[in-house]
Amino acid sequence: MPIPCTPDLRWRLIESALENAAPDLLIRGGKTWNAYTGEVEIADIAICGDRIAKVGTWSAALDAATSVIDATGMIAVPGYIEPHTHLSPFCSPLSFAERAVCHGVSCVVFDQLMLALPLGPEVLERVTTALSQASLPLFFWLARTASQSRFRDEEAWFGPEIVRRQLESPSYLGTVEMTRWTELLDKRTAMRFLEVFEQCRSSGKLNDGHFAGARTQKLAALATTGIRSCHEAITTEEALDRLRLGLWVLLRHSSLRPDLPVLLDVIGKTRFHDRLVFTTDGATELRIDERGVSDGLISLALERGVAPDIAYRMATLNPATYLGLDDDLGAVAPGRIANVNLLDNLNNPTPRVVICRGRVAARDRQLTVPAPSASFPWSAVYRTDLLCVPAWDAARFFLPADAPNPFPAGRLVNGAITRVAPTALTASDKGLWPSEPDTLVLAVTDRSGAFISRGIIQGMGAGIDVIATSYTTNAGILVLGRTPEIMAEALKRLRRLGGGSVAASTDGKWVEFAFSMSGIHSTCDFSTGVEAARRFSDLLREAGYAHSDPVYTLLFLTADFLPEVRATEAGWYSVKDDRVLFPAESLSAPWRGRPRFCMACMRPWTTFSAVSARYHCA
Amino acid sequence: MPIPCTPDLRWRLIESALENAAPDLLIRGGKTWNAYTGEVEIADIAICGDRIAKVGTWSAALDAATSVIDATGMIAVPGYIEPHTHLSPFCSPLSFAERAVCHGVSCVVFDQLMLALPLGPEVLERVTTALSQASLPLFFWLARTASQSRFRDEEAWFGPEIVRRQLESPSYLGTVEMTRWTELLDKRTAMRFLEVFEQCRSSGKLNDGHFAGARTQKLAALATTGIRSCHEAITTEEALDRLRLGLWVLLRHSSLRPDLPVLLDVIGKTRFHDRLVFTTDGATELRIDERGVSDGLISLALERGVAPDIAYRMATLNPATYLGLDDDLGAVAPGRIANVNLLDNLNNPTPRVVICRGRVAARDRQLTVPAPSASFPWSAVYRTDLLCVPAWDAARFFLPADAPNPFPAGRLVNGAITRVAPTALTASDKGLWPSEPDTLVLAVTDRSGAFISRGIIQGMGAGIDVIATSYTTNAGILVLGRTPEIMAEALKRLRRLGGGSVAASTDGKWVEFAFSMSGIHSTCDFSTGVEAARRFSDLLREAGYAHSDPVYTLLFLTADFLPEVRATEAGWYSVKDDRVLFPAESLSAPWRGRPRFCMACMRPWTTFSAVSARYHCA
Repeated sequence: MPIPCTPDLRWRLIESALENAAPDLLIRGGKTWNAYTGEVEIADIAICGDRIAKVGTWSAALDAATSVIDATGMIAVPGYIEPHTHLSPFCSPLSFAERAVCHGVSCVVFDQLMLALPLGPEVLERVTTALSQASLPLFFWLARTASQSRFRDEEAWFGPEIVRRQLESPSYLGTVEMTRWTELLDKRTAMRFLEVFEQCRSSGKLNDGHFAGARTQKLAALATTGIRSCHEAITTEEALDRLRLGLWVLLRHSSLRPDLPVLLDVIGKTRFHDRLVFTTDGATELRIDERGVSDGLISLALERGVAPDIAYRMATLNPATYLGLDDDLGAVAPGRIANVNLLDNLNNPTPRVVICRGRVAARDRQLTVPAPSASFPWSAVYRTDLLCVPAWDAARFFLPADAPNPFPAGRLVNGAITRVAPTALTASDKGLWPSEPDTLVLAVTDRSGAFISRGIIQGMGAGIDVIATSYTTNAGILVLGRTPEIMAEALKRLRRLGGGSVAASTDGKWVEFAFSMSGIHSTCDFSTGVEAARRFSDLLREAGYAHSDPVYTLLFLTADFLPEVRATEAGWYSVKDDRVLFPAESLSAPWRGRPRFCMACMRPWTTFSAVSARYHCA
Repeated sequence: MPIPCTPDLRWRLIESALENAAPDLLIRGGKTWNAYTGEVEIADIAICGDRIAKVGTWSAALDAATSVIDATGMIAVPGYIEPHTHLSPFCSPLSFAERAVCHGVSCVVFDQLMLALPLGPEVLERVTTALSQASLPLFFWLARTASQSRFRDEEAWFGPEIVRRQLESPSYLGTVEMTRWTELLDKRTAMRFLEVFEQCRSSGKLNDGHFAGARTQKLAALATTGIRSCHEAITTEEALDRLRLGLWVLLRHSSLRPDLPVLLDVIGKTRFHDRLVFTTDGATELRIDERGVSDGLISLALERGVAPDIAYRMATLNPATYLGLDDDLGAVAPGRIANVNLLDNLNNPTPRVVICRGRVAARDRQLTVPAPSASFPWSAVYRTDLLCVPAWDAARFFLPADAPNPFPAGRLVNGAITRVAPTALTASDKGLWPSEPDTLVLAVTDRSGAFISRGIIQGMGAGIDVIATSYTTNAGILVLGRTPEIMAEALKRLRRLGGGSVAASTDGKWVEFAFSMSGIHSTCDFSTGVEAARRFSDLLREAGYAHSDPVYTLLFLTADFLPEVRATEAGWYSVKDDRVLFPAESLSAPWRGRPRFCMACMRPWTTFSAVSARYHCA
């Protein structure tokens, strides 16, 4: 679906293209890389409103009102597009976008899962609309069709009617990765998704995919479902397999999976490169601070010998076409949104000057306009009363007598994957507890404390005393601790913060960060978020955490699509054989899961009602 | 906008892809060209319903119900797509589509102008829907936003509300070429179109363009209007200019303009070829009979040394992406519509076997299924009472005493272009008449005989005595004759036919063809249409017609966008300076222009009403 443009602005573009009227902004004296032909030519760029009127020599007079940028010695490329990303907790979606624009990213597309879960569909609608409208770069959403950590009443968050309503919004481009893709290959679970995907297609929007580990017949079957893409290839051959099947291949590279060096080899194995696209798939604050966003991916591709034409295409016109936005984005060309990066040269994709939606937004990686995140009415838009961190004492964390002994602990083999590692439990009068070193007891609950799901994690870091966080794929609470007492202490601290992340090392050092927006993210500017993330990461690394990214590790301990064991609402869970190894314990709580709200008056409903597209009191 | 697929069919595709269920059709033992990678690999193709379930080795058992095609020694390529074509008069849209499918074209996209004009929007809606539903290959329409021969009340045919209603139909992909592109550069005329184009975009559909002769600043200004493409490049440089501006370039080759040998040079001048697309832009019956459709264009490209990967892409995945149908068309891949051409080898793009929408439709250029055109209820769907060929006597054709003398005749310089050539008129008691050789008096009226617009054409053929036709861009009546008497005779014959084409040479030979569908096209099967077209063409060529195609020459004598003089409702008209050189004469007639109908009861309205989206009696 296109980005709207009024007929009045179109007429201004025509008038400026004919040089009958001066533009609002003229970028003068530079060269331009053409995303359609690969040519580089000297050209001025005339801009009216948020669109490009002309690319070529400007010969006529200018108004006093015309701003002029001297681009002599620079080369213009299209604003970069990040087509698949996720929220990070230490900053806000807006401050992420503000940092991204400093790296030349003028269009970001977000998964809304981490807002949908804590807020519910009613508040979510208000929040996603407000964020899209406030953002500096173009800011779109993809709608979740399932959770990443199954829970009761999941359809009230992700059902067909909820998704249909979300897709009516111009800020939604389609649906986002269905991570539990095995459900698409089982008729009992598949039909609902196939209906949603088709509904999404019929509204002219796209289904973004996620087929991690799918191969041969299964992968081929998944390619028939109406899903357009996959970003889960981690080898050259996996990337090529997906491309052959007609899936757009999003080549991923970030702290989660730094696979680009391998994935780039696909370029030499296909005659066509127009369906290859870069994505970070949710880089964390630290990663962005160190490596940039799309600019970092282009840079890496150039270092690996990828032709500049292909490297820039994969961050510009290719993702624009993938998203169905290529009439409006992806090129420095007449009629397109004026997203233009001015580079010193094509070897350095981090822009000197970023023109975003028709105005200069950044120079030398610094914003030149006020940051919308600083003035956004966070508390008025969000509901921050939707997290109820339970006040559990230490006794609650013991494993009960009926727990398996030895217990099927999850040993981290990398930042995301666990393998079952049985560990002996020692009995005391309060319950069972593990005794091996580098072993943490895990407790997970939802946003109301309505259950406790217990497990054991090994290999997190021998010097870690405790971690508690409200940034998990179930949008609930996760506590990992060496003793019941320290877990109760961390939970108390988390409760005081109103959600966030808390950690302590065995030498008694604590770090604490509030994620003030319902426990999911802070409202910090990006630099402050980077500092917070760094302190959190540093403490854990000093305490022995040795994997790619502790934020992802914690996030995914509740995810029901990653091998091998996880903590879910049902209990300690073996993903591959879909089996609960140790059931969760049900508790009393103010509500189960999350409260829901009337779209009209925003009063909470006391009980869940049937899924409804309207969800009004009336 | 995508082509719908039910969740039930999706599930069948998944089951077949997993080899849990046998397909309806299995193409076995051949190779397949991959439109995404350019690879050629041995693969079976399993098809369920109208979609591809699997491309790869089929290992499981088959049902007795599974049809099997042995493709040993053959190579599968995607069904070709003709993205921009026009109706031809000697056959029907359905019989064109039936011939096209024999050449491997499984998706055709039609301009509906030549149906819109004679039928009016109400009957048009019924006709276009019925034709799309009846067609053998996929059959889409593009909506006209303006005529090619201006007339009063034009907005009742092409206004925003009419177009909006048309675009609601799934058989419409967008709007079609606005040939009078100069109106887009004049605010008085542009705003209506800019609004329509934006409305079309906002419904997820495309604006197809036509910027014949536009260059530099004007072309660049046209690229800002929200139009996606242009098929009017006639030189390499024009093609490259359009590509640079972000327009999809439809490389045209047909009897109208055989430009491919020149246009193909653009391939060597751009790094990227994904926005280059083949089109015939409305090949006539004779041309198709001699040179095929898309297969002929691919063949020519291969002869000129274009790499097969690029040549096939320009008829398959590229046009699918241009049309926004690439999730459903353009590749032999899972989930796509099962449009598959089996070739002897890539050097010969005319298929041995054509699978269209999941069933074998043609072998060796012969249909293998019943032709829908043979059973289509033509007279029930169309209104054939909307043409009133006037009963004018010879006196009506004389030029009156106030005609310019010498008269600014139009001399044909090729099949489409005229240049002003003043010619002396000789007076008699009945009026004025030219006396030079190879000079024909022209008379044009509308479908009711409500005016007569007179002119003179030279260079049509010295041995031509008369031509009369109801196949003109104004959907009215055109008569060209050497004497007033022979013009009256031709008109009488045309009246008897109920519309069609009539011609006679000076040695007294006549040909006559009825276009029984409201004077616009016949209901012939394609081969019969070819024979009729050949006899018509042969008579004119024997009588001295020496240009590309007489059908186009006649069609365009009423077109108000081609240089230099034309006959329109306003009179004998100079296109470039927008000036009437000799006004038309108004006459009394049963209606002016065309009657309109109530969408509900199909009763004609006696008078025009305001443009309305509903146009109901109530």
